[in-house]
Amino acid sequence: MRNLNADNITDAVITQFAGCDDARLKCVLDSLVYHLHAFIRDVEPTEQEWTQAIDFLTRTGQMCDDKRQEFILLSDTLGVTMLVDAINHQTSDPMVTESTVLGPFYVADPPAANQGEAIDWGVEGEPLFVEGRVHDERGEPLANVVIDVWQSDGDGFYDVQKELDSASLRARFTTDERGRYAFWTVTPSPYPIPTDGPVGKMLEVTGRHPYRPAHVHFMLMAEGHDSLVTQVFAENDPYLDSDAVFGVKDSLVMVYALLPPGKAPDGRSMQTPYRYLKYDFGLQAS
Amino acid sequence: MRNLNADNITDAVITQFAGCDDARLKCVLDSLVYHLHAFIRDVEPTEQEWTQAIDFLTRTGQMCDDKRQEFILLSDTLGVTMLVDAINHQTSDPMVTESTVLGPFYVADPPAANQGEAIDWGVEGEPLFVEGRVHDERGEPLANVVIDVWQSDGDGFYDVQKELDSASLRARFTTDERGRYAFWTVTPSPYPIPTDGPVGKMLEVTGRHPYRPAHVHFMLMAEGHDSLVTQVFAENDPYLDSDAVFGVKDSLVMVYALLPPGKAPDGRSMQTPYRYLKYDFGLQAS
Ligand SMILES: [Fe+2]
Ligand SMILES: [Fe+2]
Repeated sequence: MRNLNADNITDAVITQFAGCDDARLKCVLDSLVYHLHAFIRDVEPTEQEWTQAIDFLTRTGQMCDDKRQEFILLSDTLGVTMLVDAINHQTSDPMVTESTVLGPFYVADPPAANQGEAIDWGVEGEPLFVEGRVHDERGEPLANVVIDVWQSDGDGFYDVQKELDSASLRARFTTDERGRYAFWTVTPSPYPIPTDGPVGKMLEVTGRHPYRPAHVHFMLMAEGHDSLVTQVFAENDPYLDSDAVFGVKDSLVMVYALLPPGKAPDGRSMQTPYRYLKYDFGLQAS
Repeated sequence: MRNLNADNITDAVITQFAGCDDARLKCVLDSLVYHLHAFIRDVEPTEQEWTQAIDFLTRTGQMCDDKRQEFILLSDTLGVTMLVDAINHQTSDPMVTESTVLGPFYVADPPAANQGEAIDWGVEGEPLFVEGRVHDERGEPLANVVIDVWQSDGDGFYDVQKELDSASLRARFTTDERGRYAFWTVTPSPYPIPTDGPVGKMLEVTGRHPYRPAHVHFMLMAEGHDSLVTQVFAENDPYLDSDAVFGVKDSLVMVYALLPPGKAPDGRSMQTPYRYLKYDFGLQAS
């Protein structure tokens, strides 16, 4: 294993993984080396360019902390996250809700909230009532489904970006015996993914905008069913066809209906106009 | 740009880079997306596996600081650094010295040292006298060539790994009017690349050893010539044919001759046995 050149080094590296006992890991690394070397052969980077690439990856890692995940942003903006999602959730069953990216703002174990409760703790904005039901592939209601909800405020910021003392616009609901969920919140707005790191710079220098269309995130976990990670987008949003992370699907675009003051669907008496979103989720048996 | 799936997302992402004014950057990113997506399609990672990959990259970035570059180690151990080197330094001229990896331990602007000076400041070990000359492609001596030298000690550690107060086994020489350089140091030993980070763990779980054969690093910079980054390895080293970073070339393997006490080549009187390495470097006109 000496005198390696552009023609024989790929085989030499793969041969070094021959002793890997973990067959899956060996398969992944062999493929990584093959495709990574093919990329290098394709673009023939100068040493300075490769140093810049190393520096970009380093700064991307160093931008990460417990509230910021720049490598997820990189995966999202290069379409890799949606590709992994597509590979893992190939459903053509119209009774099963389509999935989309998790995004970097999910926080495990959000505060529990009751059916119909408002989760706009400490933020102001246009009121939004969200409700719906969760069903299985045959349309039968699913009770006790855990639904984690998270979203940006009307200015496009998540609680973790604002360094609030406690969670806001982020909660865990559980469906009732008829599969229903409901909550009050504020209407989310389109927002740029964080642009103060290497990924934002990459978008800027390549002429790409960093915006995502307005959406509410949902993660559903039900006994005996595949977990579902998805988002519900707002119709007529200007970024539906240029989502910075490639996550929009028609089946996930809904009207966030603007309703006049009066009695809301849950009986609440509204003094101002508000919005209403109804969305039913279908889960696939696992 | 909605409803993207495994078949059409690659084109959709590449289309988003259409507005990039920097033609080279666009070419690199298009190729990156193409090959990265091909890798993902090939291995079909589960979402958990992709999360592990994101975590690996994040920890690799976070392992880096001003004295540790874990992404260079990753590039080195996957053979990418040597591939980039091979692409950029394709010479078949036997008068031009072959290049190899820079490695993660180079420090810019090392302390200047005089011809024949010892650079084993603060370390003990088997004495080694290194000398040679630098010439151009026709064999003519090159004066005023800046030669940065750096190496591990006899235990396999670089100064930056030992948190010394000042540089050791690291210096800058300049060739004299006859192209000569010379210095005293200690004999380097084979050493493992740092294994306390994600890259070391990758080697461990894949059954690869982390060792590099003993070597001295050289970086030569001369007016009107390509810079040369290389290493000179010691013959009979047990790791010459399994270098963890794929950097060994036959033309860079030399005898570190063991000589008896007596008068050394520079006239120094040696009371103990010592080693002697003679290596001439040939630089390519730029
Ligand atoms: Fe979001
Ligand atoms: Fe080294």
